[in-house]
Amino acid sequence: MGSKKVGNQTIVFENGPYIISGHTIAGPMEGQGPLAASFDTILKDTSDGEKSWERTESKMLEKAMREVANKADIPLDSVDYLLAGDLLNQIISSNFAARQIGLPFIGLYGACSSMALSMAMGSMLIDGGFGSKVICSASSHHETAERQYRLPTEQGNQRPMYGQWTVTGAGGVLLSDSGTGPKVTTATIGRVIDYGETDVNNMGAAMAPAVADTIINHLNDLQRQADYYDLIVTGDLGSVGLQLLLKVLEKNNVKIPNNFNDCGVMIYNTEQDTHAGGSGCGCSAIVFAGHLLKKVYAGNLKKILFIGSGSLHSPTSALQGETIPAIGHAVSIEV
Amino acid sequence: MGSKKVGNQTIVFENGPYIISGHTIAGPMEGQGPLAASFDTILKDTSDGEKSWERTESKMLEKAMREVANKADIPLDSVDYLLAGDLLNQIISSNFAARQIGLPFIGLYGACSSMALSMAMGSMLIDGGFGSKVICSASSHHETAERQYRLPTEQGNQRPMYGQWTVTGAGGVLLSDSGTGPKVTTATIGRVIDYGETDVNNMGAAMAPAVADTIINHLNDLQRQADYYDLIVTGDLGSVGLQLLLKVLEKNNVKIPNNFNDCGVMIYNTEQDTHAGGSGCGCSAIVFAGHLLKKVYAGNLKKILFIGSGSLHSPTSALQGETIPAIGHAVSIEV
Repeated sequence: MGSKKVGNQTIVFENGPYIISGHTIAGPMEGQGPLAASFDTILKDTSDGEKSWERTESKMLEKAMREVANKADIPLDSVDYLLAGDLLNQIISSNFAARQIGLPFIGLYGACSSMALSMAMGSMLIDGGFGSKVICSASSHHETAERQYRLPTEQGNQRPMYGQWTVTGAGGVLLSDSGTGPKVTTATIGRVIDYGETDVNNMGAAMAPAVADTIINHLNDLQRQADYYDLIVTGDLGSVGLQLLLKVLEKNNVKIPNNFNDCGVMIYNTEQDTHAGGSGCGCSAIVFAGHLLKKVYAGNLKKILFIGSGSLHSPTSALQGETIPAIGHAVSIEV
Repeated sequence: MGSKKVGNQTIVFENGPYIISGHTIAGPMEGQGPLAASFDTILKDTSDGEKSWERTESKMLEKAMREVANKADIPLDSVDYLLAGDLLNQIISSNFAARQIGLPFIGLYGACSSMALSMAMGSMLIDGGFGSKVICSASSHHETAERQYRLPTEQGNQRPMYGQWTVTGAGGVLLSDSGTGPKVTTATIGRVIDYGETDVNNMGAAMAPAVADTIINHLNDLQRQADYYDLIVTGDLGSVGLQLLLKVLEKNNVKIPNNFNDCGVMIYNTEQDTHAGGSGCGCSAIVFAGHLLKKVYAGNLKKILFIGSGSLHSPTSALQGETIPAIGHAVSIEV
């Protein structure tokens, strides 16, 4: 069997998996945004009856994992692997959800790129013949993330206008070696890029160069123009990062048609006062597995490039004065 | 192409990658232990000239990544993927090392199972045809881990006798689709198991049931007895966890020949006062990529089952009263 790698960084799947189902659980604020109708469940409050927000987040993720199998009418025990990642230290949301499910588990850390990373890895597991069903998933929770990364939300601190709002949400997709409908056709695994940003509130600026690097390599590797895709969607650069991304791409002579958008920009209304938009692993997870996947299933989108963007710092590295490394992982989905 | 999965959880590699090189960097205390002669570099002190221990750890990991390519005489830019994991929040040791290297990077979190997990995933990437060279690596540092998970080492707290000592070390191997010598022949991806342990000092007890589950499934899937292997080596249960593992296996009617050992038991002398032995991603990384791999290259070991064991809690989950979930990932290496 020859290599499936094309160019420097891109894999073309010979037997690209079908995305046979998606499931999303959103927080109350996300449920007031423009994509509300696309979410399967909207929590009434951020606790959902649990004694800690960490338990809530893990429960949301577990439910997303179970429901993708239910929806596809696939018994959970016939799923080969569970792939998941989240923002919490030691990815406890994923670990505890995986404990409840009991399937072979691969823990990933790609910060907000985790959903795209899990889909890239899950597609390789299926294309490589290592299994026939893989659940790919990710989650974040506004309160668990803010108190870990920045400040407890109870404190009511002011946030800068270029800051993003961590989404409360969990999303998953079920990849399968058989079925019909959209397939994951390529994956581009990103490199860690660091342009020297040090402001942990400005993650869009930290991530834009890494996302640009992945998009440029993806297009070069496949000798494609950006207009090959109906939609190139990043997750989650927010409004500041998305503008910077387009500038970096322009500087690198990438022809930019009017097909770029960002999950963080899409998930909230301007009136919701989230400043630069959404962020967190759950943002791109629920926008992709909800809104976008429904559009693909309905035939309204036929070719998507989905690029997860992750800011790879920690509160410790930031306090120690380190700059913010970032990464972008891309998967293309085609009907 | 049919599935390569055998039984419930095990993959048999049709084109299992060769382990063409290994490299290890150990801390000063590890350099005074019984395996000292097997390490490539032993640091004189735990800082190695850096202003933070976190920087030291990341530098060690970066060096291990570079040196596996150097040793194998493979240009770094012909390596397809960098796989790494560590114990620090948001796996910053791996992220910052990957930034310096600039290769496509897949971040993993499996706590102390990260070295085995990275080898399992790296083997799938090669066997699946997604690349020809993959670096698999992991690290830990006594001071960075202790202050994050337990207490700052400067405080000089007493540790219980069943506690393990986080290893300062970074190890890596280079997997290749061509070469000679030992190959990764199978991988068994573990499930998250939780027997209700709550004492974060007693990780051996938390991890033993998960490791037992993986070993039992591995042997059942392949219809093998434990004496198929010259060595079944866990990493890192320590002396308490290793005893518990053998008890759980006995209860499950696994015939136990005298071929079990644990990286955490092997790495220190009793006089070094580490109590139950070593732990941390770096422990199994340097024992495997150093001591064990050298024995395999020398022909003294022909069939190894290497099971990485990870305790998947966080300080937050422990403080919130949650029990400790754990996982074991196994790879077999055969000449």
